[in-house]
Parts: sequence; structure tokens; C-alpha cells
Amino acid sequence: MERSDHRPATMIQGGAVFPHRHLTGIDGLQPHEIAFLLDEAENWVEANRTHAKSAAPLAGLTQINAFFENSTRTLLSFEIAGKRLGADVVNMHAAQSSVKKGETLIDTAQTLNAMRADVIVIRHMSSGAVKMIADKVDCAVLNAGDGRHEHPTQALLDALTIRRRRGTIANQRVVICGDVLHSRVARSNILSLTALAAEVRVCAPSTLMPKAIERMGVTAFTDFDAALEGADVVMMLRLQNERMDGALVPSPREYRLRYGLTEQRLARAVPGAMVMHPGPMNRGVEIDSAVADGPQSAITEQVAMGVAVRMACLDVLTRRARGVEAW
Amino acid sequence: MERSDHRPATMIQGGAVFPHRHLTGIDGLQPHEIAFLLDEAENWVEANRTHAKSAAPLAGLTQINAFFENSTRTLLSFEIAGKRLGADVVNMHAAQSSVKKGETLIDTAQTLNAMRADVIVIRHMSSGAVKMIADKVDCAVLNAGDGRHEHPTQALLDALTIRRRRGTIANQRVVICGDVLHSRVARSNILSLTALAAEVRVCAPSTLMPKAIERMGVTAFTDFDAALEGADVVMMLRLQNERMDGALVPSPREYRLRYGLTEQRLARAVPGAMVMHPGPMNRGVEIDSAVADGPQSAITEQVAMGVAVRMACLDVLTRRARGVEAW
Amino acid sequence: MERSDHRPATMIQGGAVFPHRHLTGIDGLQPHEIAFLLDEAENWVEANRTHAKSAAPLAGLTQINAFFENSTRTLLSFEIAGKRLGADVVNMHAAQSSVKKGETLIDTAQTLNAMRADVIVIRHMSSGAVKMIADKVDCAVLNAGDGRHEHPTQALLDALTIRRRRGTIANQRVVICGDVLHSRVARSNILSLTALAAEVRVCAPSTLMPKAIERMGVTAFTDFDAALEGADVVMMLRLQNERMDGALVPSPREYRLRYGLTEQRLARAVPGAMVMHPGPMNRGVEIDSAVADGPQSAITEQVAMGVAVRMACLDVLTRRARGVEAW
Repeated sequence: MERSDHRPATMIQGGAVFPHRHLTGIDGLQPHEIAFLLDEAENWVEANRTHAKSAAPLAGLTQINAFFENSTRTLLSFEIAGKRLGADVVNMHAAQSSVKKGETLIDTAQTLNAMRADVIVIRHMSSGAVKMIADKVDCAVLNAGDGRHEHPTQALLDALTIRRRRGTIANQRVVICGDVLHSRVARSNILSLTALAAEVRVCAPSTLMPKAIERMGVTAFTDFDAALEGADVVMMLRLQNERMDGALVPSPREYRLRYGLTEQRLARAVPGAMVMHPGPMNRGVEIDSAVADGPQSAITEQVAMGVAVRMACLDVLTRRARGVEAW
Repeated sequence: MERSDHRPATMIQGGAVFPHRHLTGIDGLQPHEIAFLLDEAENWVEANRTHAKSAAPLAGLTQINAFFENSTRTLLSFEIAGKRLGADVVNMHAAQSSVKKGETLIDTAQTLNAMRADVIVIRHMSSGAVKMIADKVDCAVLNAGDGRHEHPTQALLDALTIRRRRGTIANQRVVICGDVLHSRVARSNILSLTALAAEVRVCAPSTLMPKAIERMGVTAFTDFDAALEGADVVMMLRLQNERMDGALVPSPREYRLRYGLTEQRLARAVPGAMVMHPGPMNRGVEIDSAVADGPQSAITEQVAMGVAVRMACLDVLTRRARGVEAW
Repeated sequence: MERSDHRPATMIQGGAVFPHRHLTGIDGLQPHEIAFLLDEAENWVEANRTHAKSAAPLAGLTQINAFFENSTRTLLSFEIAGKRLGADVVNMHAAQSSVKKGETLIDTAQTLNAMRADVIVIRHMSSGAVKMIADKVDCAVLNAGDGRHEHPTQALLDALTIRRRRGTIANQRVVICGDVLHSRVARSNILSLTALAAEVRVCAPSTLMPKAIERMGVTAFTDFDAALEGADVVMMLRLQNERMDGALVPSPREYRLRYGLTEQRLARAVPGAMVMHPGPMNRGVEIDSAVADGPQSAITEQVAMGVAVRMACLDVLTRRARGVEAW
């Protein structure tokens, strides 16, 4: 397996390179720690190309995916990642959960912990819920999206996709366009991309733009055409169906006119600029099919990188418990 | 492991015997290709009788069961088949799917493909949806039922059950009775049984009989008693609850009177004629309990054959990707 | 692995020590058979503390969890137990089940059996449903809760938790308080604890107390304070939400006043008396948080013991089929 050449200059050994027990967000990670996770993910990109299961480092470990909010692709991605590493993967679906019986989140956390999970992957509709659970359990916790807070593995897979396509993240002009206000994907991406020295622009209708977003080190635009000038990467956000009802966005049609990524509009970016979308896409709303399926699109590559990034995170976060040397 | 003696006369080696990437339907399969899958399934029938897991040929491979339509037994059967072969099996349930968020089928297919599935098993409410996905992905696709189109593994397990009970399929008089119009089970069975030289009769109320069904090489009856004369095999179809409302069928009671398989009616078939039903049964509607639980019933055997047939299909369709010699 | 010292005086060899094919309830088990299962579970408690998967005694076996009634923790616990033993675990959810299509329970049982399950774990809303299925299948059946009848693994995990905390079960004064009338947890616990020579008191409002409960060898109380005098173990039952509507219980607030376990009330038990709850808890109704999270609480230990007890049951019940010597 070939190692990536994107390693931090200073080689820190073992657990010191990533001293965190959990991955609750990008916030709090050092740039070299983010880069370390991306480097680790590179290994799994290679391994996934072959059909032979790898060394199964997580054999005998129990991974619980506790999804309090519905998700298809993120759950699938984490489940495949865990199984490919040899873990026993168990899904807890919210719809059948004790949460419906009024159990507190802490009780659920203590229950999962008592079953001796080795890693718990959590998606929850409330910002901060994942951190609250992480504080109560003995094992590693991975945030698969909590409220409007963070979705760190999405940011990591996006960073990996950019790094692989563009060669580097530093100094890339990245435009993130859409419902920035409600998007944990935007938030985690802003944190990771600015940490890795990209130039980040966010673009949204004023009703969907967070106040004082500039404090996060980004430039805010309401004019998508202006934002796109010289962009190396265009990252579109999904417009949630519930935003299309007219309160915040006049109509899907109006939205497309001002914020949809069309071929014409993409021409404002640099030649060969890459196009991203976390999925699922609303084709014909925030992105046109000609762009989504075009040569500049990295959208299916993002999905592939998602499995590799999640494998890396599951592997790294369980090293201490598995007694890996120097962790 | 004993091999079946039902092999095609000409021994074709390796992948040439089954040169298809996918199993989207019985349509398009040669008789010797169908027979090949039945022969392969025979091996797994034997293997399933022992408790030791077989050589786990699919170890390290990822099987995604993407069920856009609810199913219990077919999903269970494919999941057990895959796990028994050593695959990492992941279920994607429609109820929690991005499809609800308006994602296109093609996008879902590309997502599953990007996660590097090795085989995707699909059930979908739309005829042709499985073929559409198969055209977009790199891995093998198995149709677990699509709309009114096909349900090929059901037809294969039915053929295997008949072959094992009756010794042969050729020249057997098979009566398929029920809602032929809406039934993918009927359609796939007609295709496979006529290919294997059975004499197929279909029987349905005129409201539930497809037009020009004779073109498929079968004889059509509206009188069940007449159809049953000299039958070797009686295959009953499930009457879907939604058909019982009076529009197409007067009432369940009326339906039973004309099309229900009773002991008295079964006596019109040859002595020892076998009785089949794909399940779940409406006891007392299309089939009486005395028949379903009687000595001529092969209904639970069909379920057992289902696992074996699915193991065979999963094994055969992944051989090329696994680098099996001559595939 | 260290063996427990709580073994029956007479060492019976192999299968004779537990000659049952199924575990449908505590009813019908001899005291030494219950003790045997607890001893077996002790082994798994130790094994679960390490991260290395054990010898995987159930490798190659198929465990089907057929849950006709929603459950999170019991399903998770059985799924983790099976996977940790190396079994192929398959979940059948009621919500997606053929049962909704009107299939009979017997047909479902025969279907699961025909797929050649090695062990079926069943939860069902009807008392006796598990026994009915057990009578129809070739493999071992484990009751994960049926109606108001029994929940034997809950009773076993409770017994194990008591035995480990208190050193013994014999002569312990155990108070079971709550909706005894509708509780299969109470019923199975009464059976096991009286079999193991505990002194069992049950306490409930008269509307939630079964008639003639004394025939089960317990003392009945309606006054919780009186019941608690000298108690070594206080086992609280969950008050189901549907009971809080006023028909049987005036209000959650009233219920707490008379039957809630508060710190003040717990002081009536012996010093260091242990507190139990099967979960999920209604904090502030049947149990106060100060008690649930206090030093006398064994609630999370119960969850941990649950996995060990289920591993023991799955292991023991499949020994004959696996050809374990003398079984």
C-alpha cells in the first residue's frame, strides 16, 4: 500500500499525533491532526480498490451506529466502513428506540456503554447531543451529524476529495453555496478548510446566511456569480425540502435562478474547477444535471472517499483500546 | 458434496456457461443457463444441511440489499444467503432512504456503486428499475422483484423445487393460478418453466388475466377445475389484499369458491401432484389449510430452496470480480 | 477464564445439566438449571472485558431475531451477544413483516425454520406465541418477551446481577414494585427468585396487582413503605406510558408519591440495599434520578449482565446442534 505524500513535516509517533478520544467535530482539531486523518484515509482508498478484506484490525470489536435521525447514505457508509474493518456492527434505529418511550439521552448512552461498545457512531437532531454522550461513555464516539452543529466525517471526506483532485487544499478558493445557516456540513467544512489554509467563500440568500459568519474566517456573498469568480472548488449544499415552502426561499424555481449551479454559471469559476455536493441532490434546484454528471463533478468520488475516511476514523479512534503500540 | 445429475449434456467451462454480469430477469437466459444455476444451487442445498460454514467464498465482499419495497422473507433469504457465503451484508431500507428526499434512482445507484459494493440486490416497485440501476453500476446486480416485471430468484427456486420433487421439469403440466396480471412471480415462472419445456397453464379470473398471454407459450384458463385436469404441479399465487376490495375480485369468499385450492379441487390433478405457493399465504382464500399443510405441499421446501438458489446466484455473479479461474 | 464458585453441589455432565431444547420461560426450569445458566454467563462476563473475540463457538450458525414487538435494548443485547459469539445474526422487524400481510404465526415460524436458522430469538406481543413457534421448529427458540407471560433472559440477568452484588440469592429479601399485573419481567423474576430461595415481596396499587399472586410464593403489599422494610434488593418496574392515562393510575405525580423510589424511601431498606430497573426508566415517576444514579444502583450493571446472559443462553442452546461432546 502506497502512503500519501501529504504528511505533516514533523513526524510525531503513535497516539501523540492524534491525542483525542472522540471525534465530535472538526472544532478543536489541529491542522496536522486533520491532515493525519486524511493520510490514514488514503491507505483505505487503496485497500478498498482490492476485493480482499484487509487485516481486519477491528475484529472482535463492537461498533454501534446509534442514529436518532434518519439517514441512508451516512449510515450505509459507516456500516460498510466498520464491516470492512472486521468489526461487529450493530445499528440502533431511532424509529424503534427507547427514546420514543421517553428515555433520556444519558440513559441511552449508559445503556450502549454497558453493552461494552468499542465505538459508538451517533447521529442526532440536537446540536451538542453527541458531545453529551461522549462525556458519559468509556469508548470512542464518532459524530455522524448533530443538529446544526457539526458533521466532521463529511468535512474530512470533502477535504480528502479536494486534496486528491487539486493536489492541495492550501490556497484553493472554495465556494460553499446554499443554506449555510442550517448546515452542519457547511460549518464543519468551513472549520476544516480554513484550518488547512483554503480561501473559503460562503454564499447564501440573506435569509439563510448566519450572522457574523466572517468571524469564522470566510468571506460572505449573497451574489453567487460574484462568489464564483476564480473559484477552484464549488461546493453546493442541499436545499432541504422543508425550506422550499416560501418562508425562507421564494420557490425552488426562484432559488435555482439565483443559487443554482448551472453550466453557464460554473464557467465563472477557474477552468476545470471541481464541483461537489454532499447528496442527496435536488437536481434542477441547487444543481443542474449537466453539472452534476459533467466532467468537473467529484460527487461520486466524495461518496467513495466517505467510506475510506470513516474507516480511518474508526481505526484511529480504537487504537488505544486495541493496545496498538504507542497508542 | 454430491453434484446433481441434472447437468446440461455439453459441459461448457468457466464463465462461458453463464456469461451474464447481472440477473435482472429470466428473460434473456438460455435454458442451459437456467439449468446451470439450478445445478449450482444443489450444492448449497447440501452445504446448508451441515452447520459448518462453507469455504466463505464471498469473504471480504460487500453485498448491499437495496429494498425500495418492503419485504420480509425475500430480504431475510438474501441476507442469510450472503452471510452464509461470508459476505459483509448491508441492508438499505426504503423507509429510511434518500428516495424519500426526492433523490433520483440513478443517484442512489451511483452512491451504492461508489461505496464499492460487490453485489447489489434490489427490490423496487417499478418495473424496469433494476435494469436501469444495473446499467449504471460496475458490480453485479440481482433483481429481487421489480414491479410487475420479474422476480427471477423466485422462479429459480420454484424450478429447483419442482425438479427435486418431480425429477424433471420437462413435460410437467404446471398450473399457475391467481392474479397473473399483476404477478412478477407468474411472469418469471412462465419464462423459466417454458424454457425448461414444461407445459404451463395459467388460470385467473378474466379481470386478472393479461391480454395475449398465450404469446408466452402458455394455455389460458378461467375455469380452475378445467385447468387442474392432469396437472403435475399446482402453483397458487397470493391474492394481494388490495385486490380484494371488489374492483377486480368480488370478495375473498367468492374468490375462494372459484379459484381457491381445496382438497376436493386438488383431486382433479394427478395423484401426488405437488402444491406450491410463494408466500405469504392467505389461508382460506387462495389456498385451504388442509392443502397447504398436506402431504402434497412443497411450500416450506420452496423457502429452503430459496436460500440455496440465492447463494448460487451470489456466488456465480461475483466470480469474475473475485478472479475465479476461467471466469 | 475463571469459573464462578456458584456451582451446584452435584456436577452433572454435559447436556444432562440443561436438557431443554428451548428457553421459553423460567417456568419449568429446575433451580440447578437456572444456576447453571448463571454460571455459564459468568464466563462471558469475563470474556467481554477483553477486546479479543472469543473462540467464536457459533461461527457458521444463523441466529434470527424475530421481533414482532418493537424493542431497542433487548434486540441490541441479543444482536451483540450473537455477533460476539461469531453467529450470522439476522434481524426480522415486525414493521416490515409479512405478519402485516395477514400471515399466520405458524407460517412465519415455518418460513424461518425452512431457512435453516440455528436459533430463533422471538419477541411477541401475545402471551404464549413463543411457545407456539418453538413447537413448530427444529432449532432452539429463545423467548425475548411474550405478552404478559415471560421474559426469561431478563430474569436471568437480574439474578446474575443480584448474585454478583449480594454474593447470593438465597434468603435475600427482594421487593418488586410497580405494574406487576402486566409485567412479564415481574413474572419471570418471581419464578426465578423464588426458585433460588429468595424472599420475594411484590408491591403494586391494587389495580395493578394480579389476583392470588401469593400462590406464586410471594407476599403482596400495596404499601411500598411497608414492603421496603429490611429489603436487600429493590427492583422497580417501568410504568408503561399507556397506564398513566388515569384508568389504572391516577397520574404520574400521584404514582410517584405512593410508588416512586425516592432516596428517603430507599432508606427503609437495609443499608447498601441494591436498586434495579429493567429500563427504560421514567425518571421522576417510578424512580428518582438521585436513586437511579446513586451508589446503590445496579442498573447499568444489569445491562452489562444482559449481554453475558444472552451469550450463555445462545451458546448452551446450540450445543446439541453443534455436536458439542455429551450434548
